[in-house]
Amino acid sequence: MEQAEIQRIRDSFAAQSMMTTLGAEMTEISKGHIVICAPILPLALQQQGFGHAGLTFSLGDSAAGYAALTMLPLDMEVVTAEIKVNLLAPARGERLIATGRVIKPGKRLSVVTAEVHAEAGDTRTLIAILQGTMVPVSA
Amino acid sequence: MEQAEIQRIRDSFAAQSMMTTLGAEMTEISKGHIVICAPILPLALQQQGFGHAGLTFSLGDSAAGYAALTMLPLDMEVVTAEIKVNLLAPARGERLIATGRVIKPGKRLSVVTAEVHAEAGDTRTLIAILQGTMVPVSA
Amino acid sequence: MEQAEIQRIRDSFAAQSMMTTLGAEMTEISKGHIVICAPILPLALQQQGFGHAGLTFSLGDSAAGYAALTMLPLDMEVVTAEIKVNLLAPARGERLIATGRVIKPGKRLSVVTAEVHAEAGDTRTLIAILQGTMVPVSA
Amino acid sequence: MEQAEIQRIRDSFAAQSMMTTLGAEMTEISKGHIVICAPILPLALQQQGFGHAGLTFSLGDSAAGYAALTMLPLDMEVVTAEIKVNLLAPARGERLIATGRVIKPGKRLSVVTAEVHAEAGDTRTLIAILQGTMVPVSA
Repeated sequence: MEQAEIQRIRDSFAAQSMMTTLGAEMTEISKGHIVICAPILPLALQQQGFGHAGLTFSLGDSAAGYAALTMLPLDMEVVTAEIKVNLLAPARGERLIATGRVIKPGKRLSVVTAEVHAEAGDTRTLIAILQGTMVPVSA
Repeated sequence: MEQAEIQRIRDSFAAQSMMTTLGAEMTEISKGHIVICAPILPLALQQQGFGHAGLTFSLGDSAAGYAALTMLPLDMEVVTAEIKVNLLAPARGERLIATGRVIKPGKRLSVVTAEVHAEAGDTRTLIAILQGTMVPVSA
Repeated sequence: MEQAEIQRIRDSFAAQSMMTTLGAEMTEISKGHIVICAPILPLALQQQGFGHAGLTFSLGDSAAGYAALTMLPLDMEVVTAEIKVNLLAPARGERLIATGRVIKPGKRLSVVTAEVHAEAGDTRTLIAILQGTMVPVSA
Repeated sequence: MEQAEIQRIRDSFAAQSMMTTLGAEMTEISKGHIVICAPILPLALQQQGFGHAGLTFSLGDSAAGYAALTMLPLDMEVVTAEIKVNLLAPARGERLIATGRVIKPGKRLSVVTAEVHAEAGDTRTLIAILQGTMVPVSA
């Protein structure tokens, strides 16, 4: 990817205050592939003390959305049309790693998936899978 | 609903730090029906300055989950097995109102829906619909 | 609705051999609202002798799709971009009734829902809810 | 897998009249993995002459469900709790190949995915991805 393409993704991500609030960082950017990591912060828990489904969703949705954006012209943004998450295990441990992937890019619609893993010490557990649709819009 | 049933829902909701972070309040509790409201805070935005999909999701998912919990014995909690959101319009305005509803309660699975509206001045716009499955677990 | 609008929906439905195979009939057509009924035929069962999930899905998806089509110009068709079904009860009885409804019409995307009921004697049971996205395409 | 395990899957599949109607065959069976193939028959088309979404769904859902069944005791069956399909391209060509896979097996819930490809001459096109939840029930 060209530097301008990478930069516009970094700029868009930096403009999402939700990602800052959750302590999220974008750690990998390539065509059709994005990784976002975040600690499981005390401010983002559910009632049993695990990471909230909203945290897992936010990271997975953002990774999937930015994966779609890597395949679009520089003057475009994407918004989520719809996305589904299956939660497989509690969001337990030090941090979450969300990997977004484009299954089918498109000018009208991009179909995307994401996986979210929880990292506790040396173990990584798959805790969620997402499948959804992103819509390109003018930036 | 009995006072103890209402109280356990309020207690569980209060224990979700994510809801506190997002400024969310539970404003209605009845059998199979929950309303959660939250301002669109500067800390929960996406790159265009609207509420993040993760905010909309978090409120809708919580409203749906607690709606399921209203129909379960006092010693149970629920967790989200899966949920899908279709986003209809940007989360724009002063606050979001998420209404969760039970379509089919069950001991193994509860099927739920939620609607999320955005309130801007006097107008309310439906911005998201959710459909999902909650699983009862021992508290 | 005008007669030409109704006719193009009837024509499109009649062109779906899958609907003929399943014995389906379109029984109600109005703006944003379609009802499709079908017997539970011996050729469309699952391994326990109930209607197959594919039968329930086919009726719900078609009802939702044609509901979207009622709100589009005469030179358009729709295709399903994505749809999710939650199955609530077995498809048991004499026939299924699928009711499709438009939640948000649009030129790029229409968000739709459907409900499917099973009729056994005098009782109607909600057996499935669907939520999805239809995409208008040139006819 | 043991012969009895394979046989109960073949028996269950053979008992699905819907699969017979659609001309479907189960061509691969292994732990957590099922392949089902079917021609695109004239009886299963949509209004543009491509395979109906209900055909694609039926094959994908069955492949995913039987993949879940490969990981369960012999006295169990599975039913679909919910499943979502994203349709990527028309079901065009001679036949469809649905591959089901278990992401997380479980006694209460199994999370599954499926891919459906269309085969036209020498080319295979991914036309749908599915993600869903199967529930084990006593046979």
